[in-house]
Amino acid sequence: MPHRVGFYQTDAMGIMHHAQYVNVLENARVAWLEEHDLPYTHYVDSGLHFAVTRVDVQYRRAARFDDRLDVRVWIEWVRGASLGIAYAILRSGETLATARTEHAMVDNTGRPLRIPRERREALAARAGTLEGFEP
Amino acid sequence: MPHRVGFYQTDAMGIMHHAQYVNVLENARVAWLEEHDLPYTHYVDSGLHFAVTRVDVQYRRAARFDDRLDVRVWIEWVRGASLGIAYAILRSGETLATARTEHAMVDNTGRPLRIPRERREALAARAGTLEGFEP
Amino acid sequence: MPHRVGFYQTDAMGIMHHAQYVNVLENARVAWLEEHDLPYTHYVDSGLHFAVTRVDVQYRRAARFDDRLDVRVWIEWVRGASLGIAYAILRSGETLATARTEHAMVDNTGRPLRIPRERREALAARAGTLEGFEP
Amino acid sequence: MPHRVGFYQTDAMGIMHHAQYVNVLENARVAWLEEHDLPYTHYVDSGLHFAVTRVDVQYRRAARFDDRLDVRVWIEWVRGASLGIAYAILRSGETLATARTEHAMVDNTGRPLRIPRERREALAARAGTLEGFEP
Repeated sequence: MPHRVGFYQTDAMGIMHHAQYVNVLENARVAWLEEHDLPYTHYVDSGLHFAVTRVDVQYRRAARFDDRLDVRVWIEWVRGASLGIAYAILRSGETLATARTEHAMVDNTGRPLRIPRERREALAARAGTLEGFEP
Repeated sequence: MPHRVGFYQTDAMGIMHHAQYVNVLENARVAWLEEHDLPYTHYVDSGLHFAVTRVDVQYRRAARFDDRLDVRVWIEWVRGASLGIAYAILRSGETLATARTEHAMVDNTGRPLRIPRERREALAARAGTLEGFEP
Repeated sequence: MPHRVGFYQTDAMGIMHHAQYVNVLENARVAWLEEHDLPYTHYVDSGLHFAVTRVDVQYRRAARFDDRLDVRVWIEWVRGASLGIAYAILRSGETLATARTEHAMVDNTGRPLRIPRERREALAARAGTLEGFEP
Repeated sequence: MPHRVGFYQTDAMGIMHHAQYVNVLENARVAWLEEHDLPYTHYVDSGLHFAVTRVDVQYRRAARFDDRLDVRVWIEWVRGASLGIAYAILRSGETLATARTEHAMVDNTGRPLRIPRERREALAARAGTLEGFEP
């Protein structure tokens, strides 16, 4: 998923603020799901959400205003009611940050649910590693 | 309402980003309602929201990281289903920005509603101008 | 400029939070400048910024998660040291919001500057109205 | 550090958006530094920044609009040019989230620097664990 750094995402150090990466990861996994699984709106419309239970981002180099970033996304693991996703954020082939997020499936009231079997199998079939990345 | 500028609210010009003022206005009117009317959670729990229909902010001077701001809030007008609020954002007595917001009462599905009479009268009794401010 | 509503841009009313529109306007004018004038990074690299002096947004209908928005941007007026920009945010041809922003040219320290003649003339030549929109 | 959840911090699941916690952590460590070390503005004015090199947040329970949160902060370790901070975010004594951040000292241009000896010793003297928390 491409992302262009907005001016509103910068901070007084002149770089993209570290919390903004967390939003970029979210957009990236929504785009990934749409391309490889189902639009996330399908989950939401069925009352299902992948609640975020963990975010771990490692920042290596700073991104700046108007930088064109490229976000790579891959599923690392899928269990009965949770899954793990990994990310690499690149600029011109250089890795600026790597990240992992963990998610638990919940309903509209926040109660944990098992991932529907069909979705779990589809996601598990996609799980793997990205060559050369160790977030 | 006091507000201290967070680092995450700054941008690459080294100042508080202009969109962040809109969040500060929101916090200020929530604090105003709690102090002078009802906690906003009471409205939300009753399925009522003051949806924002207009935001107009005039920026005069920049705020910087860690500045202590003081936000003054006053109701300008109350109608059957809408109201207008004005704001002045100050730092050490100097006006950095003035603003107006307009709101329509809506239910959980976004449908317009009349403001309950009791609340409307309570809010209207509070409407007025703040000496020396013309946002 | 197209914009797709991120989940992080929604609020507890289930809609795109009103402050997020201000960020979308910023992205839209940066994209407009790049297409019709110069990349905004050229201004920034020359120590020039179009500081925001006013933002006025009128919200007509709510945007929701994953909505595809289309933002139209046009220059309304250009003066010696300031300019006015208007916007319409649409979804499938329907206007969700209109907005106006005003800007003053400043240097890196925030001091007002005249817009360089060449840029002012180029921008003024682009000023106009968008048929059918009255923000 | 107390924090009250703003409406703008919520998302369409009706809870505080996970990226907003990262901003709350930042505010909390700025407040901690001011209380136990030096105001962060002193660092910034000396051209020193604690750049964020890692953020790791574990979310246990959701926070909602207007919740009063309490953020506990403690330094875990201090090395020559970096330090680690841990956090617990509580609501009425219940832990909603725990987090760790890592920081490298950099100058205004982002180049790594050693933490000035006086500051390093002062921070190291404060390092410790918080009873009962294992983020």
